[in-house]
Amino acid sequence: MYVIGERINGMFSDAKAAIREKDAKVIQDLANKQMEAGAWALDVNVGPAVADAEDAMLWLVETIREVSDAPLVIDTAKWDVMAAVIPNVPGAKVINSTKADPETAQKYVELAVANDASLIGLTIDADGVPGNVDKRVELGAQLITIAMEGGLPLDKLFIDPIILPVNVAPKNPGHCIEAISQLSAFADPPPHLLLGLSNVSQRCNNRSLINRTYLAMAMVNGLDSAILDPMDSELMDTAITADLLGEKMIYCDSYLEAARLVASG
Amino acid sequence: MYVIGERINGMFSDAKAAIREKDAKVIQDLANKQMEAGAWALDVNVGPAVADAEDAMLWLVETIREVSDAPLVIDTAKWDVMAAVIPNVPGAKVINSTKADPETAQKYVELAVANDASLIGLTIDADGVPGNVDKRVELGAQLITIAMEGGLPLDKLFIDPIILPVNVAPKNPGHCIEAISQLSAFADPPPHLLLGLSNVSQRCNNRSLINRTYLAMAMVNGLDSAILDPMDSELMDTAITADLLGEKMIYCDSYLEAARLVASG
Repeated sequence: MYVIGERINGMFSDAKAAIREKDAKVIQDLANKQMEAGAWALDVNVGPAVADAEDAMLWLVETIREVSDAPLVIDTAKWDVMAAVIPNVPGAKVINSTKADPETAQKYVELAVANDASLIGLTIDADGVPGNVDKRVELGAQLITIAMEGGLPLDKLFIDPIILPVNVAPKNPGHCIEAISQLSAFADPPPHLLLGLSNVSQRCNNRSLINRTYLAMAMVNGLDSAILDPMDSELMDTAITADLLGEKMIYCDSYLEAARLVASG
Repeated sequence: MYVIGERINGMFSDAKAAIREKDAKVIQDLANKQMEAGAWALDVNVGPAVADAEDAMLWLVETIREVSDAPLVIDTAKWDVMAAVIPNVPGAKVINSTKADPETAQKYVELAVANDASLIGLTIDADGVPGNVDKRVELGAQLITIAMEGGLPLDKLFIDPIILPVNVAPKNPGHCIEAISQLSAFADPPPHLLLGLSNVSQRCNNRSLINRTYLAMAMVNGLDSAILDPMDSELMDTAITADLLGEKMIYCDSYLEAARLVASG
Protein backbone atom coordinates (compact mmCIF):
# COMPACT_ATOMS: atom_id res chain seq x y z
CA MET A 1 0.00 0.00 0.00
CA TYR A 2 1.39 3.38 -1.01
CA VAL A 3 0.47 5.69 1.86
CA ILE A 4 0.74 9.41 1.19
CA GLY A 5 0.72 11.47 4.39
CA GLU A 6 -1.88 14.24 4.27
CA ARG A 7 -0.81 16.33 7.24
CA ILE A 8 1.42 18.98 5.62
CA ASN A 9 -1.56 20.95 4.37
CA GLY A 10 -2.56 24.52 5.10
CA MET A 11 -6.09 23.33 5.84
CA PHE A 12 -4.81 22.01 9.18
CA SER A 13 -4.28 24.78 11.71
CA ASP A 14 -0.80 23.65 12.84
CA ALA A 15 0.52 23.49 9.29
CA LYS A 16 -1.25 26.73 8.36
CA ALA A 17 0.45 28.64 11.17
CA ALA A 18 3.82 27.05 10.38
CA ILE A 19 3.56 28.02 6.70
CA ARG A 20 2.63 31.60 7.59
CA GLU A 21 5.48 31.95 10.08
CA LYS A 22 7.96 29.80 8.12
CA ASP A 23 8.43 27.64 11.20
CA ALA A 24 10.59 24.83 9.80
CA LYS A 25 10.50 22.71 12.94
CA VAL A 26 6.74 22.15 12.88
CA ILE A 27 6.85 21.11 9.21
CA GLN A 28 9.86 18.85 9.72
CA ASP A 29 8.20 17.24 12.73
CA LEU A 30 5.10 16.54 10.64
CA ALA A 31 7.32 15.03 7.95
CA ASN A 32 9.28 12.86 10.38
CA LYS A 33 6.24 11.65 12.29
CA GLN A 34 4.37 10.67 9.15
CA MET A 35 7.37 8.80 7.79
CA GLU A 36 7.89 6.99 11.11
CA ALA A 37 4.22 6.02 11.07
CA GLY A 38 4.68 4.26 7.73
CA ALA A 39 4.09 6.89 5.04
CA TRP A 40 5.69 6.25 1.65
CA ALA A 41 5.33 9.85 0.44
CA LEU A 42 4.24 13.24 1.77
CA ASP A 43 1.51 15.43 0.34
CA VAL A 44 2.46 19.13 0.33
CA ASN A 45 -0.35 21.68 0.13
CA VAL A 46 0.04 25.31 1.15
CA GLY A 47 -3.67 25.76 1.73
CA PRO A 48 -6.02 28.42 0.41
CA ALA A 49 -4.98 31.35 2.60
CA VAL A 50 -1.44 31.92 1.29
CA ALA A 51 -0.56 35.12 -0.61
CA ASP A 52 2.35 33.71 -2.64
CA ALA A 53 1.62 30.01 -3.17
CA GLU A 54 4.74 29.38 -5.27
CA ASP A 55 7.05 30.85 -2.67
CA ALA A 56 5.32 28.96 0.15
CA MET A 57 5.46 25.67 -1.77
CA LEU A 58 9.16 26.05 -2.57
CA TRP A 59 9.88 26.81 1.09
CA LEU A 60 7.95 23.69 2.16
CA VAL A 61 9.82 21.51 -0.35
CA GLU A 62 13.19 22.82 0.79
CA THR A 63 12.25 22.48 4.46
CA ILE A 64 11.04 18.88 4.09
CA ARG A 65 14.03 17.88 1.96
CA GLU A 66 16.31 18.78 4.86
CA VAL A 67 14.90 15.80 6.79
CA SER A 68 13.41 13.38 4.23
CA ASP A 69 14.08 11.86 0.82
CA ALA A 70 10.48 10.66 0.54
CA PRO A 71 8.56 11.39 -2.66
CA LEU A 72 6.88 14.80 -2.36
CA VAL A 73 3.34 15.06 -3.66
CA ILE A 74 2.98 18.64 -4.87
CA ASP A 75 -0.67 19.44 -4.27
CA THR A 76 -2.06 22.52 -5.97
CA ALA A 77 -4.87 23.18 -8.44
CA LYS A 78 -2.91 26.09 -9.96
CA TRP A 79 -1.03 25.21 -13.14
CA ASP A 80 1.36 28.16 -12.84
CA VAL A 81 2.41 27.11 -9.34
CA MET A 82 2.80 23.47 -10.38
CA ALA A 83 4.83 24.32 -13.48
CA ALA A 84 7.13 26.59 -11.47
CA VAL A 85 7.61 24.23 -8.50
CA ILE A 86 7.97 20.76 -10.05
CA PRO A 87 11.33 21.41 -11.79
CA ASN A 88 12.67 22.65 -8.45
CA VAL A 89 11.77 19.57 -6.36
CA PRO A 90 14.90 17.49 -5.78
CA GLY A 91 14.39 13.74 -5.81
CA ALA A 92 11.15 11.82 -6.25
CA LYS A 93 7.98 13.83 -6.83
CA VAL A 94 4.34 13.44 -7.71
CA ILE A 95 2.10 15.99 -9.44
CA ASN A 96 -1.23 16.31 -7.61
CA SER A 97 -3.22 16.66 -9.83
CA THR A 98 -4.61 16.93 -13.34
CA LYS A 99 -8.20 16.65 -14.50
CA ALA A 100 -9.07 14.22 -17.27
CA ASP A 101 -10.02 16.52 -20.14
CA PRO A 102 -7.44 15.93 -22.90
CA GLU A 103 -5.97 19.40 -23.28
CA THR A 104 -5.28 19.74 -19.55
CA ALA A 105 -4.14 16.16 -19.03
CA GLN A 106 -1.71 16.29 -21.96
CA LYS A 107 -0.08 19.41 -20.51
CA TYR A 108 0.36 17.73 -17.12
CA VAL A 109 1.68 14.51 -18.65
CA GLU A 110 4.31 16.56 -20.48
CA LEU A 111 5.30 18.24 -17.23
CA ALA A 112 5.55 14.85 -15.49
CA VAL A 113 7.64 13.25 -18.24
CA ALA A 114 9.96 16.26 -18.53
CA ASN A 115 10.67 16.15 -14.80
CA ASP A 116 10.60 12.39 -14.15
CA ALA A 117 7.58 12.92 -11.89
CA SER A 118 4.58 10.71 -11.21
CA LEU A 119 1.10 12.11 -11.87
CA ILE A 120 -2.23 11.91 -10.09
CA GLY A 121 -5.17 12.16 -12.50
CA LEU A 122 -8.70 12.88 -11.28
CA THR A 123 -11.71 11.35 -13.02
CA ILE A 124 -13.28 14.76 -13.44
CA ASP A 125 -13.78 16.91 -16.51
CA ALA A 126 -15.63 20.08 -17.45
CA ASP A 127 -18.90 18.43 -16.32
CA GLY A 128 -17.55 17.97 -12.76
CA VAL A 129 -17.40 14.84 -10.61
CA PRO A 130 -19.24 11.98 -12.34
CA GLY A 131 -22.46 10.80 -10.72
CA ASN A 132 -22.01 7.23 -11.88
CA VAL A 133 -19.46 4.46 -12.33
CA ASP A 134 -19.30 4.43 -16.13
CA LYS A 135 -18.20 8.04 -16.49
CA ARG A 136 -15.49 7.54 -13.87
CA VAL A 137 -14.18 4.51 -15.74
CA GLU A 138 -14.38 6.37 -19.06
CA LEU A 139 -12.36 9.30 -17.70
CA GLY A 140 -9.90 6.91 -16.05
CA ALA A 141 -9.40 5.14 -19.37
CA GLN A 142 -8.93 8.54 -21.00
CA LEU A 143 -6.18 9.34 -18.49
CA ILE A 144 -4.50 5.98 -19.18
CA THR A 145 -4.55 6.63 -22.93
CA ILE A 146 -3.17 10.16 -22.60
CA ALA A 147 -0.42 8.95 -20.26
CA MET A 148 0.61 6.14 -22.64
CA GLU A 149 0.56 8.45 -25.67
CA GLY A 150 2.61 11.02 -23.77
CA GLY A 151 5.26 8.53 -22.70
CA LEU A 152 4.37 8.34 -19.00
CA PRO A 153 4.75 4.72 -17.78
CA LEU A 154 1.57 3.49 -16.09
CA ASP A 155 3.42 2.78 -12.84
CA LYS A 156 3.84 6.55 -12.62
CA LEU A 157 0.13 7.26 -13.09
CA PHE A 158 -2.24 7.37 -10.10
CA ILE A 159 -5.95 7.52 -10.95
CA ASP A 160 -8.18 9.11 -8.31
CA PRO A 161 -11.91 8.43 -8.82
CA ILE A 162 -12.76 11.18 -6.29
CA ILE A 163 -14.49 10.12 -3.11
CA LEU A 164 -17.22 12.41 -1.75
CA PRO A 165 -18.53 12.41 1.83
CA VAL A 166 -20.92 9.55 2.58
CA ASN A 167 -23.30 11.88 4.43
CA VAL A 168 -24.02 13.95 1.30
CA ALA A 169 -23.35 11.42 -1.48
CA PRO A 170 -24.37 7.98 -0.20
CA LYS A 171 -23.94 6.23 -3.55
CA ASN A 172 -20.45 7.63 -4.04
CA PRO A 173 -18.42 5.20 -1.89
CA GLY A 174 -19.84 2.26 -3.86
CA HIS A 175 -19.29 4.01 -7.19
CA CYS A 176 -15.64 4.67 -6.40
CA ILE A 177 -15.01 1.08 -5.38
CA GLU A 178 -16.63 -0.27 -8.54
CA ALA A 179 -14.61 2.18 -10.67
CA ILE A 180 -11.41 1.14 -8.89
CA SER A 181 -12.22 -2.52 -9.46
CA GLN A 182 -12.82 -1.96 -13.19
CA LEU A 183 -9.83 0.34 -13.74
CA SER A 184 -7.43 -1.98 -11.93
CA ALA A 185 -8.27 -4.62 -14.54
CA PHE A 186 -7.82 -2.17 -17.41
CA ALA A 187 -4.12 -2.46 -18.17
CA ASP A 188 -1.40 -4.91 -17.16
CA PRO A 189 0.34 -3.69 -15.13
CA PRO A 190 -2.48 -1.37 -14.12
CA PRO A 191 -2.04 2.25 -13.08
CA HIS A 192 -2.13 2.94 -9.38
CA LEU A 193 -5.60 3.55 -7.97
CA LEU A 194 -5.72 6.27 -5.33
CA LEU A 195 -8.21 7.98 -3.03
CA GLY A 196 -8.10 11.08 -0.87
CA LEU A 197 -9.47 8.87 1.87
CA SER A 198 -10.45 11.35 4.58
CA ASN A 199 -12.98 12.99 2.30
CA VAL A 200 -15.33 10.00 2.66
CA SER A 201 -16.04 11.03 6.26
CA GLN A 202 -15.96 14.82 5.92
CA ARG A 203 -18.30 16.36 8.54
CA CYS A 204 -19.35 12.87 9.75
CA ASN A 205 -19.19 11.39 13.22
CA ASN A 206 -16.88 8.38 13.75
CA ARG A 207 -14.46 9.66 11.12
CA SER A 208 -11.63 7.26 11.86
CA LEU A 209 -14.01 4.27 11.88
CA ILE A 210 -15.54 5.28 8.54
CA ASN A 211 -12.10 5.94 7.02
CA ARG A 212 -10.61 2.60 8.03
CA THR A 213 -13.69 0.56 7.13
CA TYR A 214 -13.82 2.16 3.70
CA LEU A 215 -10.08 1.68 3.23
CA ALA A 216 -10.40 -2.09 3.72
CA MET A 217 -13.37 -2.22 1.33
CA ALA A 218 -11.49 -0.29 -1.35
CA MET A 219 -8.16 -2.11 -0.96
CA VAL A 220 -9.71 -5.53 -1.56
CA ASN A 221 -11.06 -4.17 -4.84
CA GLY A 222 -7.79 -2.76 -6.17
CA LEU A 223 -6.99 0.45 -4.30
CA ASP A 224 -3.21 0.48 -3.80
CA SER A 225 -2.57 4.05 -2.66
CA ALA A 226 -4.27 6.69 -0.55
CA ILE A 227 -3.72 10.15 0.82
CA LEU A 228 -4.51 9.78 4.51
CA ASP A 229 -3.32 10.52 8.04
CA PRO A 230 -0.64 7.92 8.83
CA MET A 231 -0.60 9.10 12.44
CA ASP A 232 -4.04 7.46 12.83
CA SER A 233 -2.57 4.19 14.05
CA GLU A 234 -5.85 2.25 13.82
CA LEU A 235 -6.11 3.31 10.18
CA MET A 236 -2.55 2.15 9.48
CA ASP A 237 -3.24 -1.13 11.33
CA THR A 238 -6.19 -1.65 8.99
CA ALA A 239 -4.10 -0.89 5.90
CA ILE A 240 -1.43 -3.39 6.96
CA THR A 241 -4.02 -6.04 7.86
CA ALA A 242 -5.83 -5.59 4.53
CA ASP A 243 -2.46 -6.15 2.82
CA LEU A 244 -2.04 -9.31 4.93
CA LEU A 245 -5.49 -10.61 4.02
CA GLY A 246 -4.92 -9.67 0.38
CA GLU A 247 -1.77 -11.83 0.42
CA LYS A 248 0.53 -8.86 -0.11
CA MET A 249 2.52 -10.09 2.90
CA ILE A 250 2.82 -13.30 4.92
CA TYR A 251 1.53 -13.59 8.47
CA CYS A 252 3.87 -13.54 11.42
CA ASP A 253 2.84 -12.75 14.98
CA SER A 254 4.51 -9.32 14.71
CA TYR A 255 3.21 -8.53 11.21
CA LEU A 256 2.08 -5.01 12.21
CA GLU A 257 5.51 -4.08 13.51
CA ALA A 258 7.26 -5.79 10.60
CA ALA A 259 5.22 -3.85 8.05
CA ARG A 260 5.96 -0.54 9.76
CA LEU A 261 9.68 -1.35 9.85
CA VAL A 262 9.69 -2.09 6.11
CA ALA A 263 7.67 1.06 5.30
CA SER A 264 9.95 3.34 7.30
CA GLY A 265 12.96 1.93 5.44
CA MET B 1 -26.10 -7.80 7.71
CA TYR B 2 -27.37 -11.02 9.30
CA VAL B 3 -25.24 -11.45 12.41
CA ILE B 4 -25.29 -14.89 14.03
CA GLY B 5 -23.91 -14.84 17.57
CA GLU B 6 -21.21 -17.48 18.07
CA ARG B 7 -20.92 -17.46 21.84
CA ILE B 8 -23.25 -20.30 22.84
CA ASN B 9 -20.71 -22.93 21.91
CA GLY B 10 -19.12 -25.62 24.07
CA MET B 11 -15.72 -24.60 22.71
CA PHE B 12 -15.88 -21.55 24.99
CA SER B 13 -15.14 -22.39 28.60
CA ASP B 14 -18.09 -20.45 30.08
CA ALA B 15 -20.60 -22.14 27.79
CA LYS B 16 -18.91 -25.52 28.22
CA ALA B 17 -19.27 -25.38 32.00
CA ALA B 18 -22.86 -24.13 31.75
CA ILE B 19 -23.82 -26.98 29.40
CA ARG B 20 -22.21 -29.56 31.68
CA GLU B 21 -23.94 -28.18 34.77
CA LYS B 22 -27.19 -27.20 33.01
CA ASP B 23 -26.77 -23.67 34.33
CA ALA B 24 -29.59 -21.87 32.51
CA LYS B 25 -28.65 -18.41 33.69
CA VAL B 26 -25.24 -18.40 32.00
CA ILE B 27 -26.77 -19.52 28.70
CA GLN B 28 -29.64 -17.05 28.91
CA ASP B 29 -27.20 -14.23 29.71
CA LEU B 30 -25.15 -15.13 26.64
CA ALA B 31 -28.35 -15.12 24.58
CA ASN B 32 -29.54 -11.79 25.93
CA LYS B 33 -26.20 -10.05 25.62
CA GLN B 34 -25.67 -11.18 22.04
CA MET B 35 -29.17 -10.04 21.06
CA GLU B 36 -28.68 -6.67 22.75
CA ALA B 37 -25.39 -6.28 20.89
CA GLY B 38 -27.21 -6.59 17.56
CA ALA B 39 -27.32 -10.31 16.76
CA TRP B 40 -30.07 -11.46 14.41
CA ALA B 41 -29.77 -15.16 15.33
CA LEU B 42 -27.91 -17.38 17.81
CA ASP B 43 -25.63 -20.25 16.96
CA VAL B 44 -26.09 -23.22 19.31
CA ASN B 45 -23.26 -25.75 19.55
CA VAL B 46 -22.84 -28.17 22.45
CA GLY B 47 -19.11 -28.60 21.79
CA PRO B 48 -17.13 -31.81 21.41
CA ALA B 49 -16.98 -32.93 25.07
CA VAL B 50 -20.66 -33.75 25.65
CA ALA B 51 -21.78 -37.32 26.27
CA ASP B 52 -25.37 -36.96 25.01
CA ALA B 53 -25.31 -34.27 22.33
CA GLU B 54 -29.02 -34.56 21.51
CA ASP B 55 -30.05 -34.09 25.12
CA ALA B 56 -27.66 -31.16 25.58
CA MET B 57 -28.84 -29.48 22.38
CA LEU B 58 -32.52 -29.84 23.32
CA TRP B 59 -31.81 -28.38 26.76
CA LEU B 60 -29.99 -25.43 25.15
CA VAL B 61 -32.88 -24.80 22.74
CA GLU B 62 -35.44 -24.88 25.52
CA THR B 63 -33.30 -22.69 27.76
CA ILE B 64 -32.70 -20.05 25.09
CA ARG B 65 -36.35 -20.06 24.00
CA GLU B 66 -37.36 -18.96 27.50
CA VAL B 67 -35.69 -15.58 26.82
CA SER B 68 -35.51 -15.15 23.04
CA ASP B 69 -37.52 -15.67 19.86
CA ALA B 70 -34.41 -15.24 17.70
CA PRO B 71 -33.69 -17.80 15.00
CA LEU B 72 -31.64 -20.63 16.49
CA VAL B 73 -28.79 -21.96 14.39
CA ILE B 74 -28.46 -25.62 15.30
CA ASP B 75 -24.78 -26.35 14.90
CA THR B 76 -23.73 -30.00 14.81
CA ALA B 77 -21.94 -32.20 12.30
CA LYS B 78 -23.95 -35.24 13.43
CA TRP B 79 -26.94 -36.05 11.22
CA ASP B 80 -28.70 -38.06 13.93
CA VAL B 81 -28.55 -35.16 16.37
CA MET B 82 -29.71 -32.67 13.72
CA ALA B 83 -32.59 -34.86 12.57
CA ALA B 84 -33.75 -35.38 16.15
CA VAL B 85 -33.42 -31.76 17.27
CA ILE B 86 -34.69 -29.69 14.33
CA PRO B 87 -38.36 -30.81 14.58
CA ASN B 88 -38.25 -29.86 18.25
CA VAL B 89 -37.04 -26.27 17.81
CA PRO B 90 -39.98 -23.89 18.24
CA GLY B 91 -39.92 -20.85 15.98
CA ALA B 92 -37.32 -19.85 13.44
CA LYS B 93 -34.36 -22.18 12.97
CA VAL B 94 -31.33 -22.73 10.78
CA ILE B 95 -29.58 -26.03 10.09
CA ASN B 96 -25.79 -25.65 10.46
CA SER B 97 -24.70 -27.39 8.27
CA THR B 98 -24.63 -29.67 5.26
CA LYS B 99 -21.76 -30.47 2.95
CA ALA B 100 -22.22 -30.09 -0.80
CA ASP B 101 -22.10 -33.66 -2.04
CA PRO B 102 -25.53 -34.43 -3.54
CA GLU B 103 -26.64 -37.35 -1.38
CA THR B 104 -25.90 -35.51 1.85
CA ALA B 105 -27.19 -32.13 0.69
CA GLN B 106 -30.49 -33.59 -0.57
CA LYS B 107 -31.12 -35.19 2.82
CA TYR B 108 -30.51 -31.88 4.62
CA VAL B 109 -32.64 -29.92 2.15
CA GLU B 110 -35.50 -32.34 2.86
CA LEU B 111 -35.07 -31.83 6.58
CA ALA B 112 -35.07 -28.05 6.12
CA VAL B 113 -38.15 -28.00 3.91
CA ALA B 114 -40.07 -30.41 6.17
CA ASN B 115 -39.42 -28.18 9.19
CA ASP B 116 -39.55 -24.72 7.59
CA ALA B 117 -35.89 -24.24 8.49
CA SER B 118 -33.11 -22.38 6.73
CA LEU B 119 -29.96 -24.26 5.76
CA ILE B 120 -26.27 -23.48 5.81
CA GLY B 121 -24.37 -25.33 3.07
CA LEU B 122 -20.59 -25.64 3.13
CA THR B 123 -18.58 -25.67 -0.10
CA ILE B 124 -16.90 -28.89 0.88
CA ASP B 125 -17.28 -32.42 -0.44
CA ALA B 126 -15.54 -35.76 -0.09
CA ASP B 127 -12.29 -34.14 -1.29
CA GLY B 128 -12.31 -31.66 1.60
CA VAL B 129 -12.06 -27.87 1.61
CA PRO B 130 -11.28 -26.63 -1.94
CA GLY B 131 -7.86 -25.12 -2.48
CA ASN B 132 -9.09 -22.75 -5.18
CA VAL B 133 -11.94 -20.43 -6.12
CA ASP B 134 -13.43 -22.46 -8.95
CA LYS B 135 -14.18 -25.52 -6.85
CA ARG B 136 -15.83 -23.37 -4.18
CA VAL B 137 -18.04 -21.75 -6.78
CA GLU B 138 -18.83 -25.13 -8.35
CA LEU B 139 -19.88 -26.59 -4.98
CA GLY B 140 -21.85 -23.44 -4.18
CA ALA B 141 -23.68 -23.75 -7.48
CA GLN B 142 -24.33 -27.41 -6.67
CA LEU B 143 -25.90 -26.39 -3.35
CA ILE B 144 -28.08 -23.81 -5.12
CA THR B 145 -29.29 -26.41 -7.61
CA ILE B 146 -30.04 -29.00 -4.94
CA ALA B 147 -31.91 -26.42 -2.86
CA MET B 148 -34.02 -25.30 -5.81
CA GLU B 149 -34.80 -28.86 -6.86
CA GLY B 150 -35.72 -29.74 -3.28
CA GLY B 151 -38.09 -26.80 -2.89
CA LEU B 152 -35.96 -24.71 -0.52
CA PRO B 153 -36.28 -21.01 -1.45
CA LEU B 154 -32.88 -19.40 -1.97
CA ASP B 155 -33.51 -16.82 0.75
CA LYS B 156 -33.40 -19.80 3.14
CA LEU B 157 -30.04 -21.02 1.83
CA PHE B 158 -26.78 -19.74 3.31
CA ILE B 159 -23.63 -20.73 1.42
CA ASP B 160 -20.44 -20.83 3.49
CA PRO B 161 -17.24 -20.97 1.41
CA ILE B 162 -15.24 -21.93 4.53
CA ILE B 163 -12.63 -19.51 5.73
CA LEU B 164 -9.37 -20.96 7.03
CA PRO B 165 -6.87 -19.15 9.28
CA VAL B 166 -4.70 -16.63 7.43
CA ASN B 167 -1.58 -17.82 9.25
CA VAL B 168 -1.80 -21.33 7.78
CA ALA B 169 -3.71 -20.69 4.53
CA PRO B 170 -2.67 -17.24 3.25
CA LYS B 171 -4.46 -17.56 -0.10
CA ASN B 172 -7.71 -18.61 1.55
CA PRO B 173 -9.10 -15.19 2.56
CA GLY B 174 -8.82 -13.99 -1.03
CA HIS B 175 -10.32 -17.20 -2.40
CA CYS B 176 -13.36 -16.92 -0.13
CA ILE B 177 -13.98 -13.30 -1.11
CA GLU B 178 -13.75 -14.11 -4.81
CA ALA B 179 -16.10 -17.08 -4.37
CA ILE B 180 -18.56 -14.89 -2.46
CA SER B 181 -18.43 -12.27 -5.18
CA GLN B 182 -19.13 -14.83 -7.90
CA LEU B 183 -21.83 -16.72 -6.00
CA SER B 184 -23.68 -13.54 -5.04
CA ALA B 185 -24.14 -12.87 -8.77
CA PHE B 186 -25.30 -16.43 -9.42
CA ALA B 187 -29.02 -16.21 -8.83
CA ASP B 188 -31.47 -13.34 -8.45
CA PRO B 189 -32.22 -13.03 -5.63
CA PRO B 190 -28.98 -14.73 -4.61
CA PRO B 191 -28.61 -17.10 -1.67
CA HIS B 192 -27.14 -15.64 1.48
CA LEU B 193 -23.36 -15.75 1.63
CA LEU B 194 -21.99 -16.57 5.07
CA LEU B 195 -18.66 -16.98 6.86
CA GLY B 196 -17.65 -18.37 10.24
CA LEU B 197 -15.65 -15.19 10.61
CA SER B 198 -13.51 -15.86 13.67
CA ASN B 199 -11.79 -18.76 11.95
CA VAL B 200 -9.81 -16.35 9.74
CA SER B 201 -7.76 -15.30 12.77
CA GLN B 202 -7.54 -18.62 14.64
CA ARG B 203 -4.26 -18.71 16.62
CA CYS B 204 -3.24 -15.29 15.25
CA ASN B 205 -2.32 -12.13 17.12
CA ASN B 206 -4.61 -9.08 16.69
CA ARG B 207 -7.64 -11.32 16.26
CA SER B 208 -10.28 -8.61 16.52
CA LEU B 209 -8.38 -6.39 14.05
CA ILE B 210 -8.04 -9.22 11.54
CA ASN B 211 -11.69 -10.21 11.97
CA ARG B 212 -13.11 -6.74 11.44
CA THR B 213 -10.80 -5.88 8.54
CA TYR B 214 -11.73 -9.10 6.78
CA LEU B 215 -15.42 -8.55 7.49
CA ALA B 216 -15.37 -5.18 5.68
CA MET B 217 -13.47 -6.71 2.75
CA ALA B 218 -15.95 -9.58 2.44
CA MET B 219 -19.11 -7.49 2.92
CA VAL B 220 -18.27 -5.16 0.05
CA ASN B 221 -18.03 -8.23 -2.17
CA GLY B 222 -21.38 -9.76 -1.24
CA LEU B 223 -21.10 -11.32 2.21
CA ASP B 224 -24.42 -10.66 3.95
CA SER B 225 -24.20 -12.91 7.00
CA ALA B 226 -21.58 -14.13 9.43
CA ILE B 227 -21.19 -16.19 12.57
CA LEU B 228 -19.20 -13.94 14.87
CA ASP B 229 -18.96 -12.48 18.36
CA PRO B 230 -21.47 -9.61 18.50
CA MET B 231 -20.07 -8.60 21.90
CA ASP B 232 -16.93 -7.41 20.07
CA SER B 233 -18.24 -3.86 19.74
CA GLU B 234 -15.51 -2.76 17.34
CA LEU B 235 -16.43 -5.63 15.07
CA MET B 236 -20.11 -4.67 15.16
CA ASP B 237 -19.18 -1.02 14.52
CA THR B 238 -17.33 -2.19 11.43
CA ALA B 239 -20.29 -4.29 10.24
CA ILE B 240 -22.65 -1.33 10.63
CA THR B 241 -20.23 1.07 8.93
CA ALA B 242 -19.70 -1.32 6.02
CA ASP B 243 -23.49 -1.42 5.62
CA LEU B 244 -23.48 2.41 5.64
CA LEU B 245 -20.75 2.60 3.01
CA GLY B 246 -22.49 -0.10 0.96
CA GLU B 247 -25.60 2.06 0.94
CA LYS B 248 -27.62 -0.44 2.99
CA MET B 249 -28.53 2.44 5.32
CA ILE B 250 -28.44 6.24 5.19
CA TYR B 251 -26.00 8.29 7.25
CA CYS B 252 -27.12 10.12 10.34
CA ASP B 253 -24.81 11.30 13.11
CA SER B 254 -26.06 8.50 15.37
CA TYR B 255 -26.02 5.78 12.69
CA LEU B 256 -24.23 3.28 14.97
CA GLU B 257 -26.84 3.61 17.70
CA ALA B 258 -29.69 3.61 15.18
CA ALA B 259 -28.50 0.38 13.59
CA ARG B 260 -28.19 -1.34 16.97
CA LEU B 261 -31.70 -0.22 17.92
CA VAL B 262 -33.12 -1.64 14.69
CA ALA B 263 -31.20 -4.91 15.07
CA SER B 264 -32.33 -5.46 18.64
CA GLY B 265 -35.94 -4.95 17.54
